[in-house]
Amino acid sequence: MSKIPKPVIRRLAVYLRCLSELEEKGIKLVSSKQLASMLHIKDSQVRKDLSYFGNLGHRGIGYDVKGLARKLREVLGLYKIWSVIILGAGNIGRALANHRRLEQNNFKVKAVFDIDKRKIGKQIAPGLIVKNVDELEHFVRQNGVDIAVLAVPADVANELANRLEISGVKGIICFAPTTLSCKIPVEYVDITVFFKTLAHTIVNSSYNI
Amino acid sequence: MSKIPKPVIRRLAVYLRCLSELEEKGIKLVSSKQLASMLHIKDSQVRKDLSYFGNLGHRGIGYDVKGLARKLREVLGLYKIWSVIILGAGNIGRALANHRRLEQNNFKVKAVFDIDKRKIGKQIAPGLIVKNVDELEHFVRQNGVDIAVLAVPADVANELANRLEISGVKGIICFAPTTLSCKIPVEYVDITVFFKTLAHTIVNSSYNI
Repeated sequence: MSKIPKPVIRRLAVYLRCLSELEEKGIKLVSSKQLASMLHIKDSQVRKDLSYFGNLGHRGIGYDVKGLARKLREVLGLYKIWSVIILGAGNIGRALANHRRLEQNNFKVKAVFDIDKRKIGKQIAPGLIVKNVDELEHFVRQNGVDIAVLAVPADVANELANRLEISGVKGIICFAPTTLSCKIPVEYVDITVFFKTLAHTIVNSSYNI
Repeated sequence: MSKIPKPVIRRLAVYLRCLSELEEKGIKLVSSKQLASMLHIKDSQVRKDLSYFGNLGHRGIGYDVKGLARKLREVLGLYKIWSVIILGAGNIGRALANHRRLEQNNFKVKAVFDIDKRKIGKQIAPGLIVKNVDELEHFVRQNGVDIAVLAVPADVANELANRLEISGVKGIICFAPTTLSCKIPVEYVDITVFFKTLAHTIVNSSYNI
């Protein structure tokens, strides 16, 4: 199970979003074709991705929406509440602290830290007051933080990642445009990558017009 | 060239970020091994990805940093300035409007739109005053917008996407958790996917401890 390739895991997370939409609408069954069209991919890809978990579908009937969603939540580790902290109370930190979909998906932001005295003590989101980064280690040890988000400049990201690792944080989401040297798992989020990918698609589709 | 798989394109964008870091440090040559270690992937993957563009490396010497960066910018369509607008002046819209790395990468935010009268007319970023979404079509036609970012609630995203397509926008970056029905290229950004992928990695690496 630990050998599932990362692009598959990413798609599982997107399937789960689609399944949640269907669940809300009271839809009970979904075909690989429907899921594929929601993601703009081939239905053979959907069937291949889901085959990692045994035979979840029924030929000619489709997948049970609730059952498949439950399985994907289990695979993605979403059966528990993940305790999250955010480092950096800038625009990205603020957007994440206020991003309701994180909590809806079991990622609960417990604290936001910054080094800037003008930000410390101010409310950044409902129920969240920015803390001094000096309190980081103490907070992590007291509260058992799972995931830390680095929304800080690149030149301080690595040092903070090392402090997080030593304190016992289990994984990092890194918005800083740099590569971290810590041993715990890291997901890098580079927003410009989405723009560059889109630019490439636009350039190449104009060639075809 | 239009057949390059999307995961490869995404990695090209990340290679380019690494190459820019090396360029800034004045480093002239880089091996596939060095690039691979910066991305935490295998060096065979780097060589395979870059082989899409012919023989860019020199066995035993490595890749010419400047030359490879130039080639990747060309492939990704970054030889021009991309004109960008943002729909939605909430926390995500604000973070993007202030994200300096967009402009550094040739994505220039020209305007931000919202429907909320309390936000319209206010400054959201240096030189950017929030405009009324009623002005959308006029602005797009006058200014030749390439890319629009949808940082709006899911229930209005599709209607706005259709308006953007009709106005002549070439592609959309969609932060709304929904699937759009327009025909122009769309890149979906779901921040929770990064959290779910990390959660999966953490759960599976704990199994191995």
